[in-house]
Amino acid sequence: MSKNAKIREEARAITARPPAVILCEPQLGENIGTAARAMANFGLVDLRIVNPRDGWPSEKARAAASRADHVIDRVQVFETTEAAIADLNFVYATTARSREVPKPVRGPDEAAIKAVELGERQHGVGYLFGRERWGLNNEEVALADEIVTLPVDPDFASLNIAQAVLVCAYEWRNTASRGELPFLLSEEEHPPASKDDILRMFEHLERSLDDVSFFRPPERRPHMVRNLRNIFQKAELSQQEVRTLRGVIAALERRETRPRKSRDSDETET
Amino acid sequence: MSKNAKIREEARAITARPPAVILCEPQLGENIGTAARAMANFGLVDLRIVNPRDGWPSEKARAAASRADHVIDRVQVFETTEAAIADLNFVYATTARSREVPKPVRGPDEAAIKAVELGERQHGVGYLFGRERWGLNNEEVALADEIVTLPVDPDFASLNIAQAVLVCAYEWRNTASRGELPFLLSEEEHPPASKDDILRMFEHLERSLDDVSFFRPPERRPHMVRNLRNIFQKAELSQQEVRTLRGVIAALERRETRPRKSRDSDETET
Repeated sequence: MSKNAKIREEARAITARPPAVILCEPQLGENIGTAARAMANFGLVDLRIVNPRDGWPSEKARAAASRADHVIDRVQVFETTEAAIADLNFVYATTARSREVPKPVRGPDEAAIKAVELGERQHGVGYLFGRERWGLNNEEVALADEIVTLPVDPDFASLNIAQAVLVCAYEWRNTASRGELPFLLSEEEHPPASKDDILRMFEHLERSLDDVSFFRPPERRPHMVRNLRNIFQKAELSQQEVRTLRGVIAALERRETRPRKSRDSDETET
Repeated sequence: MSKNAKIREEARAITARPPAVILCEPQLGENIGTAARAMANFGLVDLRIVNPRDGWPSEKARAAASRADHVIDRVQVFETTEAAIADLNFVYATTARSREVPKPVRGPDEAAIKAVELGERQHGVGYLFGRERWGLNNEEVALADEIVTLPVDPDFASLNIAQAVLVCAYEWRNTASRGELPFLLSEEEHPPASKDDILRMFEHLERSLDDVSFFRPPERRPHMVRNLRNIFQKAELSQQEVRTLRGVIAALERRETRPRKSRDSDETET
């Protein structure tokens, strides 16, 4: 996908320390790579791996990461989960099934709120993710402060590791950036029409329709005018769109586009 | 991952009509399959494909869908995007870059709110997703009512199609189910301790510490007691955990666990 030429600076302004992602004994390099890519999409960089089955470094992981090299290059590998989380302050265990442990269970949205709060204070937060086949074991869940699970369809609950990482990373960034998007509808380029512009357009349309006796019977005119105006009110028209519509009305009247002081050529632009 | 034995019925209670996912000219069967799996995770079933490069059906798609056969089996293939959305009422275009079109731009969370509102009225909602390489073209974006973009890191904005589908599907389900998770901390199995239980535990601990002259100098006792109590208050102890801790205190006192009427064996369970 091409570069976005107009990135809003608000979308870059994140002050919270991003959480670490800890993959416990992942089997496939591809999954490590796609998890790294998902992290990079949402601004996470600290990936830790406990005992990767196929060793490390992994060319398959790098290929699957689709240029998230800044995450792959700084991966840390550990022999135990204890060592992988030693420098952190708060750890979530992600799991797809109920565990008989007395820990709070959060959705990724609620978990992100706490992760961002702690990250704003520069505390180290981590999310533990389990093996492809059976997730985290009970000893690993016991290392965590709280549990995160996703609001999946209970009848199709099995998520790929990278998908679970993606949702947690997405919620983290959405919370940390307060929902700021990389781009928005540009109000500079599409300034909204003033009410005066819109009323003059309505009057123009209604005069034209009067000329062709559109409003029949005449006593229905007020009702029909209201309905027509409501249609265009809903469209939240821009200045340019009002000009375009006035050009359309003029063209349908088979009148010449009326000469104006400026922006004359805009009249029929669509 | 093993089946979850204790699924909460609340997590199944969704009344909104789920949105359709429309993939425009996807190139790789794998991406169609992983998109289908992501949909199934969050309860979406209506997958439509416009001109898949490698044709349909696709064994690669079925394999990548990891048993989301109910989605793969009902895939509809169309020759044009117009035909693919003809029966829908409201369509989002997903895009990773700013488009010079005067349409509202939403995050997946805000988009989900409207999609669920419309789905509750059984309106047909769709999300358009573009090609692997360059996304949707401008004619496809023009077919949509609004634009959805993800709150990605602007410097690493390129998402795999299935990842974009996943986040939109996740937000849809999280909104439609009002955040209901498949399981929660079971209050039945871990009923919280009463304040009386906790106060008696505190008094037990403080008596034991008095016996070993822990509180020194004596005038510091009230302050030290408050600090100790605060530590255990934060843990939001269950009845069982209070029993366990009283067993621990008794053991450290090197006293016999005091006989009680019932649940005697619970005293030292950890």
